[in-house]
Amino acid sequence: MNLYTSKTEATAKQAFEAAKTGDESRVRSLIDHSFNIEDCDEEGNSLLHYAVMGKNVSLTTYLVEHCGMDPAWANQNMVTPYDLSKGTPIEEYFRTVCGFGLEECYRNPVLRGMHPDPSILRVGDDYYMVNSSFLYFPALPISHSKDLVHWKVIGYGVTDSKWAEEHLGSLEGGRGFWAPDISYHNGRFYICATLRQNDDAPYIQTQMVTSSQFPQGPYETPVIHDVLGIDPSIFTDDDGKRYMLLNRGARIMEISEDGKEILSEPTLIWYGYSGHAPEGPHLLKKDGYYYCFLAEGGTGKGHMITVSRSRNLYGPYEPCPFNPIMHQKDEMAAIQCCGHGKPVQTPDGRWFIAYLCSRFIDGQWGMLGRETCLDEMQWTSDGWPVINKGKGPSYMAALPYPYQRENGLSVEQGEAWLSPRTRDENRIRQEEDGSVWIRGDGMDLWEKGCRSLLLKCQPDFQFTMEFTMDIVEEETEFTSDAGVTLYYDENTYIKFGITRDMVFVSEYVDNSYVRTEQKPFSFQKSVTFRVETKGLNRSFYINNSYLWHWPDVTSICSEGLVKGKRFTGAMYGVYVNGSNLLCWRQHSEIQ
Amino acid sequence: MNLYTSKTEATAKQAFEAAKTGDESRVRSLIDHSFNIEDCDEEGNSLLHYAVMGKNVSLTTYLVEHCGMDPAWANQNMVTPYDLSKGTPIEEYFRTVCGFGLEECYRNPVLRGMHPDPSILRVGDDYYMVNSSFLYFPALPISHSKDLVHWKVIGYGVTDSKWAEEHLGSLEGGRGFWAPDISYHNGRFYICATLRQNDDAPYIQTQMVTSSQFPQGPYETPVIHDVLGIDPSIFTDDDGKRYMLLNRGARIMEISEDGKEILSEPTLIWYGYSGHAPEGPHLLKKDGYYYCFLAEGGTGKGHMITVSRSRNLYGPYEPCPFNPIMHQKDEMAAIQCCGHGKPVQTPDGRWFIAYLCSRFIDGQWGMLGRETCLDEMQWTSDGWPVINKGKGPSYMAALPYPYQRENGLSVEQGEAWLSPRTRDENRIRQEEDGSVWIRGDGMDLWEKGCRSLLLKCQPDFQFTMEFTMDIVEEETEFTSDAGVTLYYDENTYIKFGITRDMVFVSEYVDNSYVRTEQKPFSFQKSVTFRVETKGLNRSFYINNSYLWHWPDVTSICSEGLVKGKRFTGAMYGVYVNGSNLLCWRQHSEIQ
Repeated sequence: MNLYTSKTEATAKQAFEAAKTGDESRVRSLIDHSFNIEDCDEEGNSLLHYAVMGKNVSLTTYLVEHCGMDPAWANQNMVTPYDLSKGTPIEEYFRTVCGFGLEECYRNPVLRGMHPDPSILRVGDDYYMVNSSFLYFPALPISHSKDLVHWKVIGYGVTDSKWAEEHLGSLEGGRGFWAPDISYHNGRFYICATLRQNDDAPYIQTQMVTSSQFPQGPYETPVIHDVLGIDPSIFTDDDGKRYMLLNRGARIMEISEDGKEILSEPTLIWYGYSGHAPEGPHLLKKDGYYYCFLAEGGTGKGHMITVSRSRNLYGPYEPCPFNPIMHQKDEMAAIQCCGHGKPVQTPDGRWFIAYLCSRFIDGQWGMLGRETCLDEMQWTSDGWPVINKGKGPSYMAALPYPYQRENGLSVEQGEAWLSPRTRDENRIRQEEDGSVWIRGDGMDLWEKGCRSLLLKCQPDFQFTMEFTMDIVEEETEFTSDAGVTLYYDENTYIKFGITRDMVFVSEYVDNSYVRTEQKPFSFQKSVTFRVETKGLNRSFYINNSYLWHWPDVTSICSEGLVKGKRFTGAMYGVYVNGSNLLCWRQHSEIQ
Repeated sequence: MNLYTSKTEATAKQAFEAAKTGDESRVRSLIDHSFNIEDCDEEGNSLLHYAVMGKNVSLTTYLVEHCGMDPAWANQNMVTPYDLSKGTPIEEYFRTVCGFGLEECYRNPVLRGMHPDPSILRVGDDYYMVNSSFLYFPALPISHSKDLVHWKVIGYGVTDSKWAEEHLGSLEGGRGFWAPDISYHNGRFYICATLRQNDDAPYIQTQMVTSSQFPQGPYETPVIHDVLGIDPSIFTDDDGKRYMLLNRGARIMEISEDGKEILSEPTLIWYGYSGHAPEGPHLLKKDGYYYCFLAEGGTGKGHMITVSRSRNLYGPYEPCPFNPIMHQKDEMAAIQCCGHGKPVQTPDGRWFIAYLCSRFIDGQWGMLGRETCLDEMQWTSDGWPVINKGKGPSYMAALPYPYQRENGLSVEQGEAWLSPRTRDENRIRQEEDGSVWIRGDGMDLWEKGCRSLLLKCQPDFQFTMEFTMDIVEEETEFTSDAGVTLYYDENTYIKFGITRDMVFVSEYVDNSYVRTEQKPFSFQKSVTFRVETKGLNRSFYINNSYLWHWPDVTSICSEGLVKGKRFTGAMYGVYVNGSNLLCWRQHSEIQ
């Protein structure tokens, strides 16, 4: 779709208006002679959105069957014509066209908020996923699902805070664990990932491997291999030989069974299709072919998934004639930057692929970082994979398991609170009643040593967070500040907190606080902070009193600052500065 | 390919240099860590071009088999690594990789210079093609081939100058016959085309149909249908019913057997894949499916070929999951803007598709207009067409008929000299000895009534034309001017001619002569004009004496002026102004 490409914007608006009033003959005549079907309005509503608003079944059928319009194409707010049809006769028609009912589908992205670089695995009836965690600790979240759509974090690949202090403690934002892979071999779960160091390290890219008997862990102390490259994955061939794949392109090295030793130099087996930033290699063996999947084009708008195959592990690899097999070509689409995928087979022989995407506010602000999508993958009878019938990412698709499956292992962890780099266990205590204590360490959030904050990923573009917390004075008087934070990294964050006599909101960008608002506030031990989030807007409330509205929060987007590696997404959480003790007993997050 | 996307241009240059000196390990290390395989230099030379210059067979093999580089990818001068390998051991390796020898292949575009909107047809062992002719007369050239690669003009769809005067006489440049189609039914050849009128006409788009018993003609006086739309084609269903297809999208109307009557209103059967400028509809019936081919994306860099299929003529049509099946995604490619194609089957069951492309000087000047390419089309076992294995247009490909076939019908016409709009037969006479006489009509080339010029399409970016001509005084003295012209349309052309006492070159843009150079020259009855063309450069010679060099001739490119419809290409030829008589006996054109 595109914004108003018809001869005049007026033509498009006439067509939209005619569709909305159900004037079928006018719409058909405009399509025949002047309206471009690709046109949408500023909110991304297509002609089909308008036709559904007009409730004209015949026109809707015409647009679908003659003009190829898709009932499941979403506007910028992720609303599809199918959604708009709910409760009208058109809903039933769309059920037939789409092959699923509105209640029998899932929506992409399936994992929202920062979930980059998904790697997926099935063992028995259980699906597992790891995502990149960059600097955050505990590191390398492992999610579990029974149905490929509903996921729950069951553990982390790295939970040893001492190890993390040593390996992540001094890293800059955006470094740390990049693009992990999860695999299974002889009763053990293997996780490997790139440990991206600061740019002045002897090896700026190193590869870590760990394993565990249980998917949720605990995982062994990682082994670090000093081999340059990113995006490692592990492949076991039919003869039992094991290999680590690494970019650029797909380079393979033989490794020992436990992944702790590298037995050969990397050998390039396929550089890729586009020549640009070939990475994220995954090998799959099927029907006598080695299929090599790559992420190419960079993780921005050129991102794509490509594939090649060979009868021999070392190639030569024949590129798929339908490359890229996943790529968002539609500039007005709400889901962009699709790539970096790994396929998985269901027990009954169907295939799905998990891959990353980005969504943007106003077409440019990728506040949530990269999220995870899922789509079905078919195979042509010539033996080539096709994702979502070649249509790019889906907005809504039939549930892989339409009947509910018992969900979850007997693992209770759930998503953890995260800290940058590592955790000072002496300063953070979680009580059985759910309350959490954080003792300040005298450092502000821009300091790489600061450990007195706890974070989660911003879950979507709209949400409200509310924290009620006790702030306990242990010194003779309350010093410095405490409260909640909207956080990207040590270079860009917003603090919404109180001092002894003020409530304030303050934005830190690059090397300084660039914007602060404050009001007198008499210190109270118990305070409720609320932040309402809608796109770039933030409204700040204290104890249910409205304080400020900021309409333009862009610094906590990846595009908000050009400095270092900005591959993560917006986070939110609590912090305490100075040497005070903070405890919160309640918090809520409403989407 | 792209110009220097590696971290630094220096990285790319290091890789090129290492490849040129055959330093394989250096090249491999740069590929592993910093050089992007997509990089090419300013002339479009890829790393593989350099590796072939370095004559390192092992490195060349590595780049082809591990990095997926294509020996047949051309630089901006249409030179491929395969070309550079000639006479080296690499040539033999490339023969195996490509599947054809250097002498057993053809080059795209197969028809160079202005050959837009090809429509192709096979009858028996003979292939026929028509192309758009816009304002030029005789109109709608019909080419013939036995091998799909070598083509010869055998006739024209419109040769009646009186009819042309009436229908084309007052049209502006770029109007006239757009996007014709050739088809065969019950012993007759049918040609249909849009006759695009001036913008103030009651029907700005009308459709013409004509037919003949012989492919070369003569064709009947055309019938004109007042139906809005462009790009008509004729499809005959198995039940003998006949249809005309028309844009936007594919709209079909039932027509009478002779095409002279339209029996139904147009009905949209498929709007297309991209929503943008769906046109050039062609239907093909194969294995129980109706396949609908469209040109989409506009005739510029977004151009593409798409396809859908249905078991029913009126749909609904299922889009091919591999759309677009032809599209040039490579911005550094020498062949751009590929689309508007029609498939043809060989007697032994292979498929090819003829389609249009553009080539650009300095990436922006499409001097030759749109040319015609040919590529093989395969079918997947799922019944979808794939062109050139999904790789976009080929630069070189295996000859469809590797053994020479007897070429040509017993038709001698060959490419005719063209006039804008129509021909005043009283003013132009071709003698049996090959000499041509033109009598001036007192009009200059910017006048729409001017008929005293004869033109051919510029054959390629480099060529030399030389005309030796007699200029005969019939009046008391030689008035005005005569000579040769480099011509785009009545708005943009260059005259290189003589007056009674001067030789001059003068460029006309929009409404005036904007640049003129002249020198004294004593009138001679017989004069030789030579113009050497290389890209945007023109060198002018008279009687073998060098006169001027113009390095920047852009006005006769489609992009050289924004005015009206500029869909044609550069032409060259002779003209006479005033009321004199000009005769030329010799002319040569050397590429």
